[in-house]
Amino acid sequence: MTDGVAAVIITIMVLELKAPEGADWESLHELWPVFFGYVLSFIYVAIYWNNHHHYFHLVGRVNGAVLWANFHLLFWLSLIPFSTAWLGEHAFMPVPTALYGVSLFMPAFAWLLMQRVIIHSQGEHSPLQAFLGRDFKGTISAVLYATGIALSFVAPWAALICYAVVTSVWLIPDRRIEKMVASD
Amino acid sequence: MTDGVAAVIITIMVLELKAPEGADWESLHELWPVFFGYVLSFIYVAIYWNNHHHYFHLVGRVNGAVLWANFHLLFWLSLIPFSTAWLGEHAFMPVPTALYGVSLFMPAFAWLLMQRVIIHSQGEHSPLQAFLGRDFKGTISAVLYATGIALSFVAPWAALICYAVVTSVWLIPDRRIEKMVASD
Amino acid sequence: MTDGVAAVIITIMVLELKAPEGADWESLHELWPVFFGYVLSFIYVAIYWNNHHHYFHLVGRVNGAVLWANFHLLFWLSLIPFSTAWLGEHAFMPVPTALYGVSLFMPAFAWLLMQRVIIHSQGEHSPLQAFLGRDFKGTISAVLYATGIALSFVAPWAALICYAVVTSVWLIPDRRIEKMVASD
Amino acid sequence: MTDGVAAVIITIMVLELKAPEGADWESLHELWPVFFGYVLSFIYVAIYWNNHHHYFHLVGRVNGAVLWANFHLLFWLSLIPFSTAWLGEHAFMPVPTALYGVSLFMPAFAWLLMQRVIIHSQGEHSPLQAFLGRDFKGTISAVLYATGIALSFVAPWAALICYAVVTSVWLIPDRRIEKMVASD
Repeated sequence: MTDGVAAVIITIMVLELKAPEGADWESLHELWPVFFGYVLSFIYVAIYWNNHHHYFHLVGRVNGAVLWANFHLLFWLSLIPFSTAWLGEHAFMPVPTALYGVSLFMPAFAWLLMQRVIIHSQGEHSPLQAFLGRDFKGTISAVLYATGIALSFVAPWAALICYAVVTSVWLIPDRRIEKMVASD
Repeated sequence: MTDGVAAVIITIMVLELKAPEGADWESLHELWPVFFGYVLSFIYVAIYWNNHHHYFHLVGRVNGAVLWANFHLLFWLSLIPFSTAWLGEHAFMPVPTALYGVSLFMPAFAWLLMQRVIIHSQGEHSPLQAFLGRDFKGTISAVLYATGIALSFVAPWAALICYAVVTSVWLIPDRRIEKMVASD
Repeated sequence: MTDGVAAVIITIMVLELKAPEGADWESLHELWPVFFGYVLSFIYVAIYWNNHHHYFHLVGRVNGAVLWANFHLLFWLSLIPFSTAWLGEHAFMPVPTALYGVSLFMPAFAWLLMQRVIIHSQGEHSPLQAFLGRDFKGTISAVLYATGIALSFVAPWAALICYAVVTSVWLIPDRRIEKMVASD
Repeated sequence: MTDGVAAVIITIMVLELKAPEGADWESLHELWPVFFGYVLSFIYVAIYWNNHHHYFHLVGRVNGAVLWANFHLLFWLSLIPFSTAWLGEHAFMPVPTALYGVSLFMPAFAWLLMQRVIIHSQGEHSPLQAFLGRDFKGTISAVLYATGIALSFVAPWAALICYAVVTSVWLIPDRRIEKMVASD
């Protein structure tokens, strides 16, 4: 399901990359904001898919609550093409910038929620809890996204910097997960 | 196949969430009926996928009849985006409300049919039969959907309440299935 | 890959089922040729997927030639939405009827070719060859489709009957395959 | 994920094959450049999928770096429908021909990069390194694509021949991979 939804999100974004009218460099050049949005969202979806892949290798039993927490995450991920398209058409406008932030904040929040549900389902001595520790990275991401949403109404460019900082933090491989995989 | 079809249904519904022209709250606000329809259908597809996932873990041998019963279910599920879109454009109109009910009733009926086919394929002492018991939930769903379809021509809002009641019944995890999974 | 391509074909066909302008029975009624085309193609794709599923359970080693024969089949299957849409817009016209026949003939031919490639890869005493026997069903399908294509230019309705006959033949479960599965 | 992305690419390309207005041979004939582009890109995606399938059977442990190298490859593959569509609308124009070459060169480059990352992850005595040897085929592909891109601005038809030569080289089954599979 996750694979299918990730493919769906990418499909919808590729569909917005329409072949330009003209056949010269200039008509190609006009596409760059849409292309840039595609690159960013591809990376964003890839980060979630990547971490998701590692998590579900570590989670033995998947009960109903974990499945629903996963659907909740997929729901918010599925809205990213919509908010990316709106931002692409109205760059640096307050409301689209804030909504884009919300569409990044909600999957981050859904991810933290899913971690909680998985840890709860593993009971005491949860291996996921042991490896996550205090999960500074997950918490700081949510805080930075929320800061960005608030900043959208004052200085949209500062909001976009906030969002970019969080994404780059997640691009760095998660040492905890890599260690967990290696010790298997 | 089920995963692919579920992803297809979600794709088509996301494609209807088009970025609004304006860049303010009002233009976003106008989208709410489409957004609401998206949320409902996402939940609906998720419920089926969730139960489907549990069932096929319990069904050992999948013969030709079970596969066809599954395709029959997928066929009706694949029509949900169409009926949701029509209802979204003509809310509270009799015919679209009735058709929406039909598009919810048919997968419920196809689900009951598939249960019968699976139980038949397991022969006497079918473990699925044992756990389902009299399957009050499945039967009441079909009855409520049928009631809603009839009500569409008299009071469409009452029909929509009928449909919402059934969906909320299914959101509550199925204890029988959870028990079946736990006792594995 | 097969699952993905089947989902793709169904997506494209569902996308043609657009919500009608009006909100009454008549506007719904106008949709019936597109709906009928959707039903037929759904069944057609389901038949291939169903048989495909059984085959690849029986084929142990998948070498490069089998993979390419499979891609060849998928290529022709992927053109069915196109030919269905053209026929839907120009029912009973010679060229669209003939092209529709070609789009049904080619997957049937690709299927026979794939059988040959699989049997060849299994060498002497191929279990697939043993069960297929003379494969009357596969051969007669190709012959009937070819007859239909020729008839398109004389009597398109007769061509459509030819196509429908073949599809109904394949809807009947293949006893040879069922036996093969049961004897596993 | 790879399966999903391949299906996405094929979906987008099939969506461009729109049913023509007229119902005669001529209106069908006008579609041939789009159809030709579809065939070429289907083959191209199939080649990558085919090799990908073999590779990931050979690569035991998939670490984070390999996953990211794979996402990088998928990103460039996902842009092929866009460049194919632009070339289809402006055949033999310098910039679209060059961009098409770039969209073929980048997946070839990403493939070589992924090979390096896999070999690095396998450490000394990498089985992939042993079988690839000097990988003349991968290197010559990249060189020919680059030559084609340069030629686009002088003689676009010569560029297209360059691209076609590389594709036909890859259609020939890779003996090294086949041997690797057989010796499993």
